[in-house]
Order: sequence, then C-alpha cells, then structure tokens
Amino acid sequence: MQYEEIMANLSGELRRGTLILSVLSQLELQEYGYSLIHKLNEKGMNADSNTLYPLLRRLETQGLLQSEIKMIQDKPRKYYSRTKLGNEVYFKLVKEWKQMNEVIENLIKGDIK
Amino acid sequence: MQYEEIMANLSGELRRGTLILSVLSQLELQEYGYSLIHKLNEKGMNADSNTLYPLLRRLETQGLLQSEIKMIQDKPRKYYSRTKLGNEVYFKLVKEWKQMNEVIENLIKGDIK
Repeated sequence: MQYEEIMANLSGELRRGTLILSVLSQLELQEYGYSLIHKLNEKGMNADSNTLYPLLRRLETQGLLQSEIKMIQDKPRKYYSRTKLGNEVYFKLVKEWKQMNEVIENLIKGDIK
Repeated sequence: MQYEEIMANLSGELRRGTLILSVLSQLELQEYGYSLIHKLNEKGMNADSNTLYPLLRRLETQGLLQSEIKMIQDKPRKYYSRTKLGNEVYFKLVKEWKQMNEVIENLIKGDIK
C-alpha cells in the first residue's frame, strides 16, 4: 500500500468517529440535508451527501433525531433536529470526547509541534 | 435500541479512530503486546488483546511497525516499534488530530461544560 493510501485510510478512521458528534452538534435547531452539509463544511468538517444522508436516517431510526417535511417552493424538504434523547446522547458524547482528548494529549505529549 | 447500547456504539466509534494514533504514540521504543496494553491502560486508553493484537499485525503488514522476536526466560516474545514510515505517518496523524480537534471545538463551542 502506498503512503498516500495508508494516510487516507487512517485519517478517515480518525474523522469517522467524530462525524456523528459534529452532526448532532449542529441540530439543536432544524436543518435540512443540504444546509447541514454547508454548515459543517463551512466550519471545516468535510461531509458529503453520500455519507451524511444515510447517517441522518440512522440517527432518526435510533431516536436521536426527529424529522419534519416542509414544502419549500412547492418542493418537500426534510428538516432534522435533535430529540430529547438526542440531546442527552449529544452532551454525553461531548463529555466523552473531552475526556478522550485529555488521554490522547497525554499519550502524544511532546510529539505535538 | 436502548440508550446504553446507543451510547456504547457511539463511544466505540469515537474511540476506535484514535486507537491507532495511541498505539503508534507508544512505539517509538520497542514494546511487546502485553507491555503496550499495560502502558495504554495506565494512561487511560482502554485496549484489550482482542483489538490490539490484530491491529499490531495490520500495522506491521502496512509497513508502519517492525517486529523482533526475543527470547525472554526461554519464551519467545514479539517486540514492536515504529518504522521510518511509521514515524512519518504518526507525526502526520498527530497534526491531523490537532486540526480536527480545532474544528470540533469550534462546532461544539458553548456545549462543553
């Protein structure tokens, strides 16, 4: 395997776990798919529709998100936002992310330039 | 799905991506499987042999780790350490982890207690 391929795989794994946290973070208020992607990209978290749309459906099935169809210029648009359970899970994940970061910072201490 | 099960899944995904970074961080000098698990757990990164041993073999196959068998009290012990490529990948991952953290901190701003 080439260096570029290895790096792409490992970076991907590193990012994947934080995507759910990122998505939940932006859904306190309703967003539809495209506006959510735009918000995430704008803030530096790359996300495309192929990854995001199945994730939104999965989080809705799990009860973390709720959706509402609204007609915008005669076209249906699906808006997502966090449920009460989604809020609980989100704040728990934020806490875990913070704890995990402290662990990693400790592990790589001295290796950060 | 129950809340506990959902949380366990999501926390797992969050941690999985950082395990490789954690493992590479501890292998500037040689460690064998058990001593590596001990070091990681001691610093707060949970890792068990079922996850770690296949990962060490995978990273060796990819050329990021090298191994050496040493006889310790008449028993063979496999010691791992980072290769030159492993060093490059590790420092690149540290950098990416840092950048990703800045993005996430920005996304969850105000939600950290």
